[in-house]
Parts: sequence; C-alpha cells; structure tokens
Amino acid sequence: MSKPLEPQALAEACAAAMWDRDRASAGLGMTIERVAPGEAVLAMTVRGDMVNGHDMCHGGFIFTLADSAFAFACNSYNVTTVAASCDIAFLKAARAGDRLTATAREVHREGRNGIYDIAVTDQTGAAIAQFRGKSRTIGGPVIQ
Amino acid sequence: MSKPLEPQALAEACAAAMWDRDRASAGLGMTIERVAPGEAVLAMTVRGDMVNGHDMCHGGFIFTLADSAFAFACNSYNVTTVAASCDIAFLKAARAGDRLTATAREVHREGRNGIYDIAVTDQTGAAIAQFRGKSRTIGGPVIQ
Amino acid sequence: MSKPLEPQALAEACAAAMWDRDRASAGLGMTIERVAPGEAVLAMTVRGDMVNGHDMCHGGFIFTLADSAFAFACNSYNVTTVAASCDIAFLKAARAGDRLTATAREVHREGRNGIYDIAVTDQTGAAIAQFRGKSRTIGGPVIQ
Amino acid sequence: MSKPLEPQALAEACAAAMWDRDRASAGLGMTIERVAPGEAVLAMTVRGDMVNGHDMCHGGFIFTLADSAFAFACNSYNVTTVAASCDIAFLKAARAGDRLTATAREVHREGRNGIYDIAVTDQTGAAIAQFRGKSRTIGGPVIQ
Repeated sequence: MSKPLEPQALAEACAAAMWDRDRASAGLGMTIERVAPGEAVLAMTVRGDMVNGHDMCHGGFIFTLADSAFAFACNSYNVTTVAASCDIAFLKAARAGDRLTATAREVHREGRNGIYDIAVTDQTGAAIAQFRGKSRTIGGPVIQ
Repeated sequence: MSKPLEPQALAEACAAAMWDRDRASAGLGMTIERVAPGEAVLAMTVRGDMVNGHDMCHGGFIFTLADSAFAFACNSYNVTTVAASCDIAFLKAARAGDRLTATAREVHREGRNGIYDIAVTDQTGAAIAQFRGKSRTIGGPVIQ
Repeated sequence: MSKPLEPQALAEACAAAMWDRDRASAGLGMTIERVAPGEAVLAMTVRGDMVNGHDMCHGGFIFTLADSAFAFACNSYNVTTVAASCDIAFLKAARAGDRLTATAREVHREGRNGIYDIAVTDQTGAAIAQFRGKSRTIGGPVIQ
Repeated sequence: MSKPLEPQALAEACAAAMWDRDRASAGLGMTIERVAPGEAVLAMTVRGDMVNGHDMCHGGFIFTLADSAFAFACNSYNVTTVAASCDIAFLKAARAGDRLTATAREVHREGRNGIYDIAVTDQTGAAIAQFRGKSRTIGGPVIQ
C-alpha cells in the first residue's frame, strides 16, 4: 500500500500531471516557477504574436497566464477544480519582450468553493494586472 | 475637406484599422463577423493547441475571444479605448473543434467610461461564457 | 389536490412570501413595483440617513436596492436561491431625495447557477449603477 | 505655517472628518476600530432590521460595512476618492446578533486608481465575505 504524499509532493505531482496534458500553457511558452499547496508561480515572455491593435500585449494573454497560475494553485490538493468566474484589472500595458510572472495565492477555501488572487508583474516588478478567480471543485483526482 | 464618416462606416473603418495591427486575434484564427457602433461579433474555432489540463478549451482563449469582441465594440467610435477591468463567468466547457461566437453589446457609455457585455456561445447556441468589460478612453483616434 | 400555479402567479406568490419576512428591504423604504419569472423591479427613495462622507448616497444602499431586486428575480421560480457573488459599477452619484429604481433581468439560468443584471436609474432615467449578480440555488421552496 | 501631518496622523484626521459627515455608517451602528494609510478596520453588529427573506443578514448590509471600510482606507491620504466598482463574494450567512469586522488593505495604488481588498469575518473569525473595491481619486482634500 502506498503512503499518501505529503502536501508539497502532492502539489508538485498534480502540477506535473496537469502540465503533461496542458497544450495551451506550453504553447504560449509558459514555465512553472514554483508550486505549493494553494500556490503557484508561472512565467511567460510576451511574444510578437501576442500584440494587439494598440501595440500592447493583448489582455487575453495576460489573463491566460494568470488563469493558468490560478488553475495550478487550485488543483494542488488533487481534487479536480475549475474556474467558475474570474475578474481582472489591467494596471499597466505589457509590451513584446516583457517577462511576466503570475503569482497565485489562496484567499479562501471551504467546501467546494475557493478564491485565489493572482498578481501579474513584469521583469521590473511593476504591477501589470490583478486577477481574482473563484473556483469550484467538480470531484475526481487530478493525478490519474 | 473630407466629410466625416457615418457611424456605421466609422465603426467598420476602425475595425479594419485595428485588425491590421492585431496579430494576436488573427493568430488565434478569429474572424470579425460584424461590427456596428458599440457592437461587434467575433468568431473562433477551438484548436487542439487551446486545450488545457482538463481536456477543455483553456478559459484564457475564451476570455481572449470575448476581450477582442469587447475591444472592437468599444473602439468603434474612433476614440482609442482600453479595457480597465473584465469579469468572466464560465458556464459550460468548450472542446476542440467547437466554433465559438462572441457577441458584444454596449450597456453604458458616458464620458470616458463604458460597460460592455459579451456573450460567448458555441455552434449549437449553448452559452459558454458571460463577460462584462469596463472600458476607459485614453484619447487619440483609432484610425491613424 | 391543488393545481400548480402559472409562472407569473408563482413569481408573485414567491415575492409576497419573501417580502413578509424581509425586514431589511422594508426598513429601507423599498417598494416592489413589478415581479415576473426571472424579473423584478424595486424602487427606493434616498433618505437623509443614507448619505455618506462625500454627501452622496452611500454606495452600500444602492447595492442593497439592486441586491434586493436580484433576490426577488432569482427566487421567482419557488426554489430558494442565494447570491454567490455580485459586482457593481457606480456610474453617477445619487443624492438625498432621489427616487431610485432597480430593474433586474435574467441573463442565464442553468442547473443551480444563474446570472442576473440589475440596472439602477434615478427619477430622470439617468444610469446610477450597473450590478451583475451570480446566484446559486440551495434547494427548498420559497413558499412555505 | 502648519507642518504637514505624518501619514498616520493624516489617516486618522481624514477618518474623523469623513465620520463626522457619514450619517449612513453611523446609522447602521458601525464603529471604526483602526485606520492607517491605506488601511481601515470597521465593525458592525447585525441588527434584527438587517435580516432578509432567508432569515440571514441581507447581503446589502455586509456589502455596506465592507464598502465603508474601503472608503476609509482609500481616503486616508487626504485626496478625495470614490468607489468605481466593487465585487463581493458571499461565503457564509451572517445572523442577527453576529458581530462583523471588515478589514481593508491596499493591494495597488498608482495615479488615480487603487485596488483594495476587504475581508469580512464574524466574532468567531469565520470568513463571511470577500470584497474587492476599485477606487478612483476625484481630487480635492478630504479634510476641509
């Protein structure tokens, strides 16, 4: 009989399993910098093909980076969890070449509901966006 | 001296100008179905590289489609306008191959502030997401 | 055996039952102008004791009016439903003496989840606030 | 010529000035527990007249408490600042007699825009609501 994993090892195993089937995050060039129970830090460099009509990084890619950090954080307990709703405030434009980091932390978790805050910063530490995600567990393990 | 464009012609000219420099929306395979003053309809097919760790379309791409529709709608008056904040509720999973349509309508516009609602549906008409965006004009024309 | 009520009669019966035990809405001087399945219109006059430190109606009372309209709309099917989360944008200050009207309409309802939009206007029709509420049914009838 | 106040003294002076003209917060029985630059803690006991149709504290009063804490926090620098939009997640019902505490902290402040998070807890420390407010300075001093 296998011993249950410690929380940190479990968070890392969940992240590895999710990453293997997450073509979207990989395709955008994201990297996982760190995961822990209820936490995740992801990074991504803004590419030329992420630029929108105002010559700034399309907000959708900033959202996507934050949403991925949210997903890794809220699935770190090995219970499949999805985003119910998300709110993002755009604070400063990001440009092609900027290195963005999304840091997700857990604000609340009880029963099937969770709230996570994700701060997106650039390589100078400037605040690019603030994201708040509300999650809902749908059951089933993350590690199959 | 050139005559000012009618509102519908102006909306179409703004959309054309934005589209020309929007590598992000084009790169994701979006198409503009319709624009009008304060309105825009965009479509996108979910590709295999948009799928995330739960085998569903990554919420970030659904957001990005809605956010693009929002951008075309709020920039349709030829005053450069950006997203200040956005909220999205995910209602139903989208899968690879689904054809998504984002329909943006103006809820409020006064001074420099606007509110736009964007409904995302799939090819069966099922509701995939509801998005509300708050815009802020930053000045300067869209058509340069 | 009693015949089930028609949807409109059911919405009115639910509103009457909720109103009887809603000391909060009554205490603030709200009135129900209209209810229908998924809809509700409530009104309230801004009183002198609702004014805040900027000599404007405290946003909390505008929210409360919208939240009450939301509650009457989402409970109109005789299934007990609560607010999960709400977002409000404040568009224009309201002053003491203003007569505010909150008009709630259903945007989406599927399974246990709903989305309702509530527009708050004053006696001149000016937009005061836009509110979006996300509801969740918790089961049990409204009419006991 | 008077010496400018230190930040903490200024925050306290702003709070005192706002409180003097805030009939709404006082009328609901709120008390200011603490203020500091960018921070405020307010408390309120749920009264019988704050109960809604589900026998729970009307969400509007929980919002109002959080919104007041937000207002005291974002006006603590002596620049008049208003709520642009707010989002609240209701986590647990509050009942008549519960003593609620709203703790506001600053997440971001740059130029005229700010983001503040307000956690509402009850007398047992249980999480009742999470509120995020976006502020906008409108100019003019708070202390007149």
